[in-house]
Amino acid sequence: MTGEARIGWAARSMPVLTAIGSGFGDERPFEGLRIAACLHVTAETAVLMGALKAGGAHIALAASNPLSTQDDVAQALEEYGIAVHAKAGVDRATYYRHINQALDIAPDIVLDDGCDLVNTLHTERRDLLDGVRGGCEETTTGIIRLRQMAAEQALSFPVVAVNDTRTKRMFDNRYGTGQSTFDGIMRATNAMLAGRVVVVAGFGYCGRGVAERAKGLGARVLVTEIDPVKALDAMLQGYEVKPMEEAARTGDVFVTVTGNRDVIRREHLEVMKDGAILANAGHFDVEIDVRALEELAVEVHHGVRPNTDEYVLPSGHRLLLLAEGRLVNLTAAEGHPAAVMDMSFSAQALAVAWLVREHERLEPGVYDVPEEIDVEVARLKLAAAGAAIDSLTPVQEDYLHSWRLGS
Amino acid sequence: MTGEARIGWAARSMPVLTAIGSGFGDERPFEGLRIAACLHVTAETAVLMGALKAGGAHIALAASNPLSTQDDVAQALEEYGIAVHAKAGVDRATYYRHINQALDIAPDIVLDDGCDLVNTLHTERRDLLDGVRGGCEETTTGIIRLRQMAAEQALSFPVVAVNDTRTKRMFDNRYGTGQSTFDGIMRATNAMLAGRVVVVAGFGYCGRGVAERAKGLGARVLVTEIDPVKALDAMLQGYEVKPMEEAARTGDVFVTVTGNRDVIRREHLEVMKDGAILANAGHFDVEIDVRALEELAVEVHHGVRPNTDEYVLPSGHRLLLLAEGRLVNLTAAEGHPAAVMDMSFSAQALAVAWLVREHERLEPGVYDVPEEIDVEVARLKLAAAGAAIDSLTPVQEDYLHSWRLGS
Amino acid sequence: MTGEARIGWAARSMPVLTAIGSGFGDERPFEGLRIAACLHVTAETAVLMGALKAGGAHIALAASNPLSTQDDVAQALEEYGIAVHAKAGVDRATYYRHINQALDIAPDIVLDDGCDLVNTLHTERRDLLDGVRGGCEETTTGIIRLRQMAAEQALSFPVVAVNDTRTKRMFDNRYGTGQSTFDGIMRATNAMLAGRVVVVAGFGYCGRGVAERAKGLGARVLVTEIDPVKALDAMLQGYEVKPMEEAARTGDVFVTVTGNRDVIRREHLEVMKDGAILANAGHFDVEIDVRALEELAVEVHHGVRPNTDEYVLPSGHRLLLLAEGRLVNLTAAEGHPAAVMDMSFSAQALAVAWLVREHERLEPGVYDVPEEIDVEVARLKLAAAGAAIDSLTPVQEDYLHSWRLGS
Amino acid sequence: MTGEARIGWAARSMPVLTAIGSGFGDERPFEGLRIAACLHVTAETAVLMGALKAGGAHIALAASNPLSTQDDVAQALEEYGIAVHAKAGVDRATYYRHINQALDIAPDIVLDDGCDLVNTLHTERRDLLDGVRGGCEETTTGIIRLRQMAAEQALSFPVVAVNDTRTKRMFDNRYGTGQSTFDGIMRATNAMLAGRVVVVAGFGYCGRGVAERAKGLGARVLVTEIDPVKALDAMLQGYEVKPMEEAARTGDVFVTVTGNRDVIRREHLEVMKDGAILANAGHFDVEIDVRALEELAVEVHHGVRPNTDEYVLPSGHRLLLLAEGRLVNLTAAEGHPAAVMDMSFSAQALAVAWLVREHERLEPGVYDVPEEIDVEVARLKLAAAGAAIDSLTPVQEDYLHSWRLGS
Repeated sequence: MTGEARIGWAARSMPVLTAIGSGFGDERPFEGLRIAACLHVTAETAVLMGALKAGGAHIALAASNPLSTQDDVAQALEEYGIAVHAKAGVDRATYYRHINQALDIAPDIVLDDGCDLVNTLHTERRDLLDGVRGGCEETTTGIIRLRQMAAEQALSFPVVAVNDTRTKRMFDNRYGTGQSTFDGIMRATNAMLAGRVVVVAGFGYCGRGVAERAKGLGARVLVTEIDPVKALDAMLQGYEVKPMEEAARTGDVFVTVTGNRDVIRREHLEVMKDGAILANAGHFDVEIDVRALEELAVEVHHGVRPNTDEYVLPSGHRLLLLAEGRLVNLTAAEGHPAAVMDMSFSAQALAVAWLVREHERLEPGVYDVPEEIDVEVARLKLAAAGAAIDSLTPVQEDYLHSWRLGS
Repeated sequence: MTGEARIGWAARSMPVLTAIGSGFGDERPFEGLRIAACLHVTAETAVLMGALKAGGAHIALAASNPLSTQDDVAQALEEYGIAVHAKAGVDRATYYRHINQALDIAPDIVLDDGCDLVNTLHTERRDLLDGVRGGCEETTTGIIRLRQMAAEQALSFPVVAVNDTRTKRMFDNRYGTGQSTFDGIMRATNAMLAGRVVVVAGFGYCGRGVAERAKGLGARVLVTEIDPVKALDAMLQGYEVKPMEEAARTGDVFVTVTGNRDVIRREHLEVMKDGAILANAGHFDVEIDVRALEELAVEVHHGVRPNTDEYVLPSGHRLLLLAEGRLVNLTAAEGHPAAVMDMSFSAQALAVAWLVREHERLEPGVYDVPEEIDVEVARLKLAAAGAAIDSLTPVQEDYLHSWRLGS
Repeated sequence: MTGEARIGWAARSMPVLTAIGSGFGDERPFEGLRIAACLHVTAETAVLMGALKAGGAHIALAASNPLSTQDDVAQALEEYGIAVHAKAGVDRATYYRHINQALDIAPDIVLDDGCDLVNTLHTERRDLLDGVRGGCEETTTGIIRLRQMAAEQALSFPVVAVNDTRTKRMFDNRYGTGQSTFDGIMRATNAMLAGRVVVVAGFGYCGRGVAERAKGLGARVLVTEIDPVKALDAMLQGYEVKPMEEAARTGDVFVTVTGNRDVIRREHLEVMKDGAILANAGHFDVEIDVRALEELAVEVHHGVRPNTDEYVLPSGHRLLLLAEGRLVNLTAAEGHPAAVMDMSFSAQALAVAWLVREHERLEPGVYDVPEEIDVEVARLKLAAAGAAIDSLTPVQEDYLHSWRLGS
Repeated sequence: MTGEARIGWAARSMPVLTAIGSGFGDERPFEGLRIAACLHVTAETAVLMGALKAGGAHIALAASNPLSTQDDVAQALEEYGIAVHAKAGVDRATYYRHINQALDIAPDIVLDDGCDLVNTLHTERRDLLDGVRGGCEETTTGIIRLRQMAAEQALSFPVVAVNDTRTKRMFDNRYGTGQSTFDGIMRATNAMLAGRVVVVAGFGYCGRGVAERAKGLGARVLVTEIDPVKALDAMLQGYEVKPMEEAARTGDVFVTVTGNRDVIRREHLEVMKDGAILANAGHFDVEIDVRALEELAVEVHHGVRPNTDEYVLPSGHRLLLLAEGRLVNLTAAEGHPAAVMDMSFSAQALAVAWLVREHERLEPGVYDVPEEIDVEVARLKLAAAGAAIDSLTPVQEDYLHSWRLGS
């Protein structure tokens, strides 16, 4: 596929962002404004850039990570009239030169993914700060850096933390992770899941999604938890709740998704059944104690299947570690479907419009995505899926209002 | 059944409260304390009284509603050594005299259900206020009154709002309402649900529970909503989302659970199929516009089945209204299973112990149930069900802690 | 409700039979024919009688069981012009006199439920045999008697065994039993099922239905079986498969539906948890060994809830036996929804028309319901529910035909 | 992976066949017997060969299809002492020479996959016929040829049709196809299924499995059917039943699994939504009318994703055809998990043992797999999964026996 074809493909999987771009084309909310962005240069990002450009923005784009840059997408964007400063695999110096080149546009708005552009702006390019009305930050890490800056009074403009909205969490954590985790497990092992015992460690948003899909694929699901309230919820949903010590003896497939480390440890590995499959769907690769597995194993066969390593224990039991304990949905499958990026980038596009409208009333600081944007994204997503909903009648509005007043 | 037998039956359905009572028996946290309670005098309340008495409390109990008083339970409690001032069906004057008699104990702690006892204490019996360390209130209405008192500096002690905890919400809203709604519909109509179209209006906690059970009984579920985010969640769970105007034409069974009025209106009633069943699972009987139904009908047959009235429309279509549009699970079935009261009264019992421990550090005002109590209730419920969970290792504690610090 | 109202209510729950009756009204297939029927005199039967009468039949109806006769329905049928020979609670002699009175009509067609009418015809009333074109038999027991008669060359006309069709089995065994079993358990105990462990003994059609509904109500389901193939199917559907010996220790609710006796025995009862609920959904009351329960118990409390007896074991554990081990859905709830009778009686009505059309080509003997009748019932049921399906194009017909030929 | 490693991997996914092989090793039922096999030379076949060899057989193996031969597996088998006459990609003449070489062993038993070996035996190598005790045939096509031979009295020995058993059908049609179809769709499109509308055309065993998995992945499922009874069953399971004409307008993903041709035709394609995904899970590539799609399209983009071609209709709507309309689970994923082959080859191994035991009592002809073998395969599969079941007590045996006698 060419860069243009890739972008077209991404666009069709991002109906909400496409609809927003179309609205921007009518309303031109960014007429005459300049946007500097530091993002992964991918087809999905290209759709976001297109939506902003349709709204009248002049855009300069640098890469937030040289490894993810798709050069053909970069070229297609250039042809479309967006200045791209990015090339796959460049070195650190070039990386920062690209960010500086993007900043040369003298941005009114900045979009960042990890805070490097905002940081450069507040250090090397302070002369540009006055012109900046606000920004968006995509990552948790970036948000942490920004909050520290804000706490130290070092942040000069308002930034919207676009990494977490209710709609994105639905698509990402619950439904996205649920599906892509088993997509990864199936690609890696081609194992049939009906009738197998799947142990889901952790029953947060992601764990719920993983458990639902496991059940939906015909598996029997055991849940391990440390929080009694979450464990109770799992039980009330019909799952068996057990400590890992017991679950380890029963499971055919293990999925860790707790956010904690060492969830599957030496004592658990030692009692697992022959052929047990170990997968992690948590963000970091610390949930399965891979070092303990390596120490236990008397033999290791790497790559017995794609993304599958076999560890033979002294008992002769063979444990199958997927994706080396890293995120199985990203490594063995393709990560989240584009529908997830659609939610996230749509919130970002609307946040830019909100910043342009509201910046004069906003103090420097880190802002959550306003509820109204989340509602608008959901509304557009439903519309794209052809689903209509009700609206309140005036009588109902009054009733709810009076109720909230407690009168 | 005798009063004692009723209490015994309730106790076995309330394993958490029973376990708490057993713990109180060992620790005697209320040794020498006096508790005045104004609650429904039922078997479930008797189990709560028993738990507090086991902890050493002297108790005087008045009825919070003369209509719900079970005289045999009252008598059994008297025999057990708890002073009960209650009789079924007494008049208003007697009702208040009973409250005053309960207050005569000069309480250290008060338990209320609608705020009448606390109100009496702050008006007629102000001499007793100094001795009161704190109280619990069970109802939403009572909480509203207490918050007003607090806002006007008129509340003299801390009160815990025990009507809403995460564990109670699970049992009550989601799983309790879900099951008891269909229990009511089946008792009223004996209709088979497999293959029928169930329209669930509202996708809050209760609506989710109702939708899950409808699906679990083999029905096809349509959801109506006014909130795009909730509607999107319904869609992602595989339900069809439609406005009521369209759903009205398709549904075999309608369940309203929105918290709003006029959810099913004249224009919806007019297009429904012959034989459509209308049930409300929302708190107030305003969700189905019964007046519009009465105005539309050319004939009404009351009681064609228990709790079922048939309205014949000009078109000849016959609509079946259950329980006159009032809560179908309470009216046509038996309301929530005792397991729900177990959650609620367990939180109440632990809240009393918390007040006794903490009252010196608490300002007068309305308090949410502390998170630790909710966790403890969940923990005990899991234990009663024989489900064990994991606990954090020291290494995991550190990991989570460091992460929360953002380092 | 009056008899007429009861019949009206039944009719609306029997849309297929109503549609068949309406078709009979147009086509008058039974013009001038006489039908003698021996059936339960209930509202549902009345709807069947109405359909046959609409088709032109003269009908005489006797009761197949004096205990089930609804006198007001009998009276309403009389007023409608159907001769009814039945009265609730009559003695055995009257019962047979009624059958003889029904036979006095000199029937062309007979409908039977237990074979008493057909038997009387072949013994006392052989003079009428010549006129009989054929009959229908409703029960398994009746079929067994008829097959013996046929084997001995003693049966004079063709009889359709209408008790078993694919559509009836769906409604009855799988979906009917599934729902009504839990309807019965909820009415008897008001127990919350979410999060409970339900043990389903037997994974035939009924067991599948029970397991599906248990899961749909949020329970965790264990299945016991003796047939490895069915057990494997249960496992592949995500259920845990265990021997009763182990399941007995884990279950909160037990449902037997095996068709065998002593499925829950002394050794199982002894290890059950306190509060375990025992229900039978199999046809005969032999699946739970009630005698063993009685022998084990140190105390029995009858009627602790409607249809619930409590047995206290030496260990102090209290087991709750529902409906004395008889069919819980019939005893504690209302048996199958009318939708089940709709399938069964619709097949019966169409079988009568088929006998009238085909009797000359049929030898005496017992016949299964022809596949075409089953398909027609399903077609009408779909139409009543407003569901349309596809039909084959000529090209597709050819394709399937050639394929079946194996060419 | 080496051939040996491949075989090892297959073996661990085939626990039933492995257990059978181990039993054969103890009992040596094939001591001194010669087996000629014509099968796909793959790792799974190697496990079957190993089991038979463990039982004492001398084996000669030819390939049933030169395209599927895995040369490294062939070599590993040779090293293991099994004569293999197969090489990937050989021409037709070599193919038949290989079959003849396998027959040179003068077999007691033959295993065939398409009937070429048995055919060769009955034509060119009739001298060997006398020694053959019986055979197994794997494919439907082969069975048709054998039945014709039997009808013409041309078949010289008993052959077991091992392609269809209850256990295989479960694993293959329902659970296997269900999972692997969505595995294929996800690999091809990376589309998120939660909240999407999946149209399943055909509700046979495979269609049921596909519908269950679609629902389990969070999709809303529409079913199209031509058989009213199957359509009714779909409705009772909570699916929406529609004719394709209507379903075509609503669906996001279409899966055909009817066994018929032209299920999705020009008139359906014309009304589909932009972005609709078309997949076939039926055996032949005739279910989606690809020619109509080609004729309709104004543009075609091949390979927009792996196994995905995009057809742009005059309306601008883009339809995505997966795997060119061929079996999506085989083409875009890896076909059935090895667990399916485990069922099938286990039945085959046990059928060989049964032939050896019973051949003297068997007339030439085509035999179904005896029920006892199916039960044994299920029993071993349960054992491999660690699931135990009940067995009948003598009292229960009697009860069932008396019942079946109808006494």
